[in-house]
Amino acid sequence: KSSTAHLDECSNLSNASFEFMPVHTDSSEEAIKILKWMIAPYKVEEFFNHIWEKKPLHIAREKPLYYKGLISTPIIDTMLRNENIQFTKNIDITSYVDGKRETHNPEGRAHPHLVWDFYLNGCSLRLLNPQTYISHLHLLNATLQEYFHSFVGANAYLTPPDSQGFAPHYDDIEAFILQTEGKKHWRIYKPRDDNEILPRVSSKNFTDDEIGEPIMEVTLEAGDMLYFPRGYIHQGVTIDGQHSLHVTISMYQKHSWADLFEKMLPAALQLAVHDNVELRYGLPFDIYDNFGLVHSDCDTPRKKEIKDIIFSLFDKLKSHLPLDEAVDQMAKHYQRDALPPVITDLEKAVTVYGDTDIMVDDGKVINRVEISLDTKIRLLRKNIIRMVSEDSIRLYYYVENSLEYHGSELPFLEIEEDMAPGIETLITSYPEYIAVENLDLQNDTDKLQIADALWSRGLIMTECPLENIDDE
Amino acid sequence: KSSTAHLDECSNLSNASFEFMPVHTDSSEEAIKILKWMIAPYKVEEFFNHIWEKKPLHIAREKPLYYKGLISTPIIDTMLRNENIQFTKNIDITSYVDGKRETHNPEGRAHPHLVWDFYLNGCSLRLLNPQTYISHLHLLNATLQEYFHSFVGANAYLTPPDSQGFAPHYDDIEAFILQTEGKKHWRIYKPRDDNEILPRVSSKNFTDDEIGEPIMEVTLEAGDMLYFPRGYIHQGVTIDGQHSLHVTISMYQKHSWADLFEKMLPAALQLAVHDNVELRYGLPFDIYDNFGLVHSDCDTPRKKEIKDIIFSLFDKLKSHLPLDEAVDQMAKHYQRDALPPVITDLEKAVTVYGDTDIMVDDGKVINRVEISLDTKIRLLRKNIIRMVSEDSIRLYYYVENSLEYHGSELPFLEIEEDMAPGIETLITSYPEYIAVENLDLQNDTDKLQIADALWSRGLIMTECPLENIDDE
Amino acid sequence: KSSTAHLDECSNLSNASFEFMPVHTDSSEEAIKILKWMIAPYKVEEFFNHIWEKKPLHIAREKPLYYKGLISTPIIDTMLRNENIQFTKNIDITSYVDGKRETHNPEGRAHPHLVWDFYLNGCSLRLLNPQTYISHLHLLNATLQEYFHSFVGANAYLTPPDSQGFAPHYDDIEAFILQTEGKKHWRIYKPRDDNEILPRVSSKNFTDDEIGEPIMEVTLEAGDMLYFPRGYIHQGVTIDGQHSLHVTISMYQKHSWADLFEKMLPAALQLAVHDNVELRYGLPFDIYDNFGLVHSDCDTPRKKEIKDIIFSLFDKLKSHLPLDEAVDQMAKHYQRDALPPVITDLEKAVTVYGDTDIMVDDGKVINRVEISLDTKIRLLRKNIIRMVSEDSIRLYYYVENSLEYHGSELPFLEIEEDMAPGIETLITSYPEYIAVENLDLQNDTDKLQIADALWSRGLIMTECPLENIDDE
Amino acid sequence: KSSTAHLDECSNLSNASFEFMPVHTDSSEEAIKILKWMIAPYKVEEFFNHIWEKKPLHIAREKPLYYKGLISTPIIDTMLRNENIQFTKNIDITSYVDGKRETHNPEGRAHPHLVWDFYLNGCSLRLLNPQTYISHLHLLNATLQEYFHSFVGANAYLTPPDSQGFAPHYDDIEAFILQTEGKKHWRIYKPRDDNEILPRVSSKNFTDDEIGEPIMEVTLEAGDMLYFPRGYIHQGVTIDGQHSLHVTISMYQKHSWADLFEKMLPAALQLAVHDNVELRYGLPFDIYDNFGLVHSDCDTPRKKEIKDIIFSLFDKLKSHLPLDEAVDQMAKHYQRDALPPVITDLEKAVTVYGDTDIMVDDGKVINRVEISLDTKIRLLRKNIIRMVSEDSIRLYYYVENSLEYHGSELPFLEIEEDMAPGIETLITSYPEYIAVENLDLQNDTDKLQIADALWSRGLIMTECPLENIDDE
Repeated sequence: KSSTAHLDECSNLSNASFEFMPVHTDSSEEAIKILKWMIAPYKVEEFFNHIWEKKPLHIAREKPLYYKGLISTPIIDTMLRNENIQFTKNIDITSYVDGKRETHNPEGRAHPHLVWDFYLNGCSLRLLNPQTYISHLHLLNATLQEYFHSFVGANAYLTPPDSQGFAPHYDDIEAFILQTEGKKHWRIYKPRDDNEILPRVSSKNFTDDEIGEPIMEVTLEAGDMLYFPRGYIHQGVTIDGQHSLHVTISMYQKHSWADLFEKMLPAALQLAVHDNVELRYGLPFDIYDNFGLVHSDCDTPRKKEIKDIIFSLFDKLKSHLPLDEAVDQMAKHYQRDALPPVITDLEKAVTVYGDTDIMVDDGKVINRVEISLDTKIRLLRKNIIRMVSEDSIRLYYYVENSLEYHGSELPFLEIEEDMAPGIETLITSYPEYIAVENLDLQNDTDKLQIADALWSRGLIMTECPLENIDDE
Repeated sequence: KSSTAHLDECSNLSNASFEFMPVHTDSSEEAIKILKWMIAPYKVEEFFNHIWEKKPLHIAREKPLYYKGLISTPIIDTMLRNENIQFTKNIDITSYVDGKRETHNPEGRAHPHLVWDFYLNGCSLRLLNPQTYISHLHLLNATLQEYFHSFVGANAYLTPPDSQGFAPHYDDIEAFILQTEGKKHWRIYKPRDDNEILPRVSSKNFTDDEIGEPIMEVTLEAGDMLYFPRGYIHQGVTIDGQHSLHVTISMYQKHSWADLFEKMLPAALQLAVHDNVELRYGLPFDIYDNFGLVHSDCDTPRKKEIKDIIFSLFDKLKSHLPLDEAVDQMAKHYQRDALPPVITDLEKAVTVYGDTDIMVDDGKVINRVEISLDTKIRLLRKNIIRMVSEDSIRLYYYVENSLEYHGSELPFLEIEEDMAPGIETLITSYPEYIAVENLDLQNDTDKLQIADALWSRGLIMTECPLENIDDE
Repeated sequence: KSSTAHLDECSNLSNASFEFMPVHTDSSEEAIKILKWMIAPYKVEEFFNHIWEKKPLHIAREKPLYYKGLISTPIIDTMLRNENIQFTKNIDITSYVDGKRETHNPEGRAHPHLVWDFYLNGCSLRLLNPQTYISHLHLLNATLQEYFHSFVGANAYLTPPDSQGFAPHYDDIEAFILQTEGKKHWRIYKPRDDNEILPRVSSKNFTDDEIGEPIMEVTLEAGDMLYFPRGYIHQGVTIDGQHSLHVTISMYQKHSWADLFEKMLPAALQLAVHDNVELRYGLPFDIYDNFGLVHSDCDTPRKKEIKDIIFSLFDKLKSHLPLDEAVDQMAKHYQRDALPPVITDLEKAVTVYGDTDIMVDDGKVINRVEISLDTKIRLLRKNIIRMVSEDSIRLYYYVENSLEYHGSELPFLEIEEDMAPGIETLITSYPEYIAVENLDLQNDTDKLQIADALWSRGLIMTECPLENIDDE
Repeated sequence: KSSTAHLDECSNLSNASFEFMPVHTDSSEEAIKILKWMIAPYKVEEFFNHIWEKKPLHIAREKPLYYKGLISTPIIDTMLRNENIQFTKNIDITSYVDGKRETHNPEGRAHPHLVWDFYLNGCSLRLLNPQTYISHLHLLNATLQEYFHSFVGANAYLTPPDSQGFAPHYDDIEAFILQTEGKKHWRIYKPRDDNEILPRVSSKNFTDDEIGEPIMEVTLEAGDMLYFPRGYIHQGVTIDGQHSLHVTISMYQKHSWADLFEKMLPAALQLAVHDNVELRYGLPFDIYDNFGLVHSDCDTPRKKEIKDIIFSLFDKLKSHLPLDEAVDQMAKHYQRDALPPVITDLEKAVTVYGDTDIMVDDGKVINRVEISLDTKIRLLRKNIIRMVSEDSIRLYYYVENSLEYHGSELPFLEIEEDMAPGIETLITSYPEYIAVENLDLQNDTDKLQIADALWSRGLIMTECPLENIDDE
């Protein structure tokens, strides 16, 4: 369909006072666009093929204002002034002097007066997940997450001239350092051994003699970017007379094959045990005399025999790996962690977030809307819901997540099993709109009910603003 | 001192670019002023002598816009649209039909679309502590609390025409009902018996035949006020064709002599036991044969003897009642519950909340300020801190409380015992300003240190804006 | 009634094959007898008048075997051999050398091999509540508790020659040290100040310079006794070539007027608040400006006024002190702590503990018995049950308590309110027997039911062995 | 070595007053002997080949007294009389009438009077783990467990004539029903489908129409045995005029390959992830669009590609299966559950449980013993310890387990890694004795220390009684 066609449809509405442009962006493609901007002029495809999870990349851009809009010292100053920013929870005061890393957080609110006093005394500042309070960062991360299907976080680091806030260490996330002000000199070191390539947990603070020689030394200037995979040791230091401000965009924490296997293996065992009586046989009486710390060196024919049984039982698991369930569990995890979406004005006009159903002064409600069978709908974001089969069919959704990382409980919408095909239609037809009557469900009541449930939770958008039903 | 004198002082500052008017209001007096406005034309003194905790008061005002600014249906509509308002936590959907009280809360966010749908179907809305999101209510309550020294809460009730949202019941708080829109017809009933006068907990929902005849029937119109003490049963119903919106301002929950005694008695016993060996004597061997359920009717000389011992021991407690400690414990409770203050622009200029210490674009900090010995200071609010002797001397303060009722942990500033007189100077001299050098402390370092600690936590204000020290 | 009369009754039973002697001892009098033996030749009455809770008493007896039966080194040796005695839980290995007190407990079971090895190396042994495993101690303590109405505990101490196991300290119990083997030299010191007379908690370990000069020095020899009240500091040391074994019988821990008041005061306040609206009045607004740490020194007329209100409110509590309920709560505590009774052979013949209802080889039950209306019954011990009014009327009883101190849950028998007079009859008529038909209850079914419920739980005894109903 | 030789050695001891016969039994072989007796005349080998975990076996023996010693109604009667047997914890009162299964447990102690009253009214009795109180059962189970390396439990069931205590159901253990008194008619049914063959958890109570036709009907008489594997449904009913008493010996609960895999798989994954960076790669971005409930039916080339990666990663696990560690973890579980050993008089003479180190009347310790380098030792039971490598090398041992199933904490002895070979010597040389000096350790101090640590915990026995060192 051409967008002109869409325009026609919307402008044909009897009570439309303006020409409405239906939203046709695909949230996953938007993510790629923003990644492209982040790493330009490096190509995205090349990046994923040669750099991602493989090696550091430095982009010197000579455009000091390139990342300016994301965060700046005045933005931080304003945030401290207007929000109840708490030490330790939202901000850390740190120093690294003579090989000694210290944290200096007082208790309570981080008034600018106090924070800048620390700063002027040579301390560094780390803002934890500033996207909570800084809308451009929220937009950046909420957009990116739709491609990675993984929580995209941020920390911002403000360092006074001629100092260092952190000891050398490696992290457990893919890191994109976007320099927004000043300069910082970085030294990057390879993972220390094979076991520390793409590690699953962050390292302790290292001393200089534990990390060898850097494989990259670079001075990041405002507008520059530095990427390195988890496991790469790094340390940054400001130079004389120049402060530094950067934001580190992070992702892919606990998001590897190992994490998938952790969800998959116990379930695979339960399934295999259910289907194979061999796995339920009692252990042979002599297994304790052939295996164990004391018997680990011995090598008898009987030991070989038992080993063969174990290996053949192990092979049975392979055909019981619950791939779909495990991937859904990873996706459910994403729903719990994801940032809520940033809703544009255009989107507000076609979602529950907009100016529908307004209560006015005299307690009257005007501008009421209603979804009908010919209303065309689509999901508000590609990955905004995940349909999972647990005790029942559940739709997990992230729109009500707090901006602060990790809400405690994950809300879900429970649906009847025979409603599932209707949801499937919506998921698979994204980013196209589909008329409510075309949802793969038996009767019209069900179609309208599921559309209404998704609409009222803010999970779908309509192609055109809904008609006002007040006049009826 | 005249305020002219103050003006002179401030305008004499070398680098002042404007004439600054020092703040001389007393937060406790401001509270009385706002109460006066709430119950006008009734007099405050008369109110406390004849009405408060004694009987209902209805004020018909014929000024429909009198309370308008506090809350309105458009304000609620906007709040639902802009804030993540959650059912059950922030809003309840209720109905009371044919003597049956029901709650209809869905899970998740209360989008206006959903809320108004309930409303149009005859449900009532209760907003829980809307002062969290509505700034005029915040200001009203934060101001009032400084006189009552007790948490001042609010609930707002929106009822569609010709309906009732709640069953008859009584509450455990003093209630001021401020009608802001439409009309509501109220019936008020006396406490059912002496034990229910000024009760300590709210009642269940009553049926009509449990409550007798109303002692007051009144139709509240926009701009009217209705007050009644805790224990008075009440029910309100809207009339045909008229919705109703009111906010109930509440206070004095768990704030009676009984609550003070609950804190005081266990401590009194510990003190008396420490000082009186008689209380540490073992119980007489025959006490079990003279007292208890089985022996409650018997009346022997020996029983009389033991009773006399108990009564004389009880009398010993009287001289050990720790009045000061118990009142401080009540006050500490207030610090935990109180709303954070609303800071005016004038106040911002003379507190840490103002534009001091600004970080600008290039990571430079400008406009730095410093308290000196001749700086004149006072507490930001009369009751903003409470100095309590526990394991150490602690200053509890409410400025960092969340707007949502009951923060989990109460922050405090621990001070050395010899710093206490300095704090005492500040508390007792309020609302007057006092020069830092006049704090009742031994040396200048201590004076500056305590002033700085209070300033950086936002607990004091200066008479004049602090001087900029950047030029030094 | 003469016991001859009783004898006649029992021997008149048609199927009695022997003459049965009904039990007529009173458990409270038995306790006094055993106390008399413990402190002989000192008189019990004199003891309670002049010594108990007042000052130490030493009795030198020159009868080395006097306490022999209670505990001895061979008895301990046997106990270690036959029971699963655990370090820390049942036994402590301690030393006190050069002012340093140490505990040397390994993990696990205290085999004699290990224990005696420590002993031979100069360590002392403390057995915790050995009455659990040593039947004569169990009998002693279970008998004593019926007079004191308080848990009677025991610790035994075995010290090798020429050593000391513990630092000087005081305890929170009345202590009777019964020397059963060897000798120990004791030094006793007065409480250090008034606050430590009859203290409610035990002291830390003292150094020599904290305790002053002893008021008593005495060498305890086998058969001697030493009593001192809680709060008296004591230390004992063995002399060259002589070991020492003694058992300390203890009682009246947390059993003072203060403990009664701790149970009584909160309840008194609740009752007074219920009955007096004055206690439910809100606090005066200015109480916070007149009381508290900051205002503790000021002395205004208004302060006096408020104080007078508080004192008059305090006086109201006096008439609401729930003496009966508080004593019952203390008694309930006793039921939880008390040792189970030692049942004699005679008692077995007339309780559920005896050879009634025997199942024999072929699954047949013989010797069945039944209580009838003319059966004469009494409580098995004076204080074996306590009837308490809580949510319902409950009979708490200690017969199922573990021998190890403090069972987790206290069993009780819940009865209808109209059954209470029947229980009252039993309690008040002790030690006399009373026919079931004479229980103060309306109908015979109730009388038999309550008698059966008490019998089957082992709480009552019959005057004569119950008739065998097998022949019916 | 001939036992004569041993005899010689022991009788050569200077201070031996008798000829001592060293213990040479092997606890694992003793288990087989007792199993042989249980199922005689059926052969043990045949049993394991054709019956165990495969099908029911009934042995009619016509020797009514065969199992008599294990348990009998008089033994139960005595147990109720002498031990504090509690309803629910130690005994259940049940009935199954008209398809309705009920439990009738009162609270508190199960006095025989009460229990037999239920029995005479048609209720059945289930004794839970009566081996706790009945020594012959303790001996039977403690002996058997040494072959099965799995907790061997027991329940006893006493049913009055013409009744049934339980609904048809299946259990999760291998069951040996030993009929000791009376008769019971049993119906046995096959597992209902393949998934219920050798199930891992017990079933609910079935109704008659859920279980089909019995595959075996048999009347068990005193002295008979009935075995059936877990998963076989069974119900037993007594006949007219005949009670029934049997004990069910059970084992192999949660003791299958599945249980081993549950311990092994998570550890295997951790090991594989550590060694293979492939498992630490991030998930492909498109995995969420190819797997999951919504995508489960689709079958794209990309899906196949991802599946192949997952399968190849799965294969990597195979070489990381920690067989030794997992078997040790199963064995550790056994140590927690196992019954403490029954020590014979002969064994007492050569272990710490015997009359070594006796404290006599005057506080003197006599008969002290000491292990020397030429002392010959062996483990007290084959499986009495399990050496496991966890945070350190630990020896778990079951000798201090309570007789009641599942002690809360498992004691262990932590040893230095270089002591391990000494323990290994002991484990692998069982049942032979080995001189302390021949333990595979570097120096004599270590050898003596390890021997002493094991001796003092009751884990080893000596070939001959230890010499008395008092004379030295």
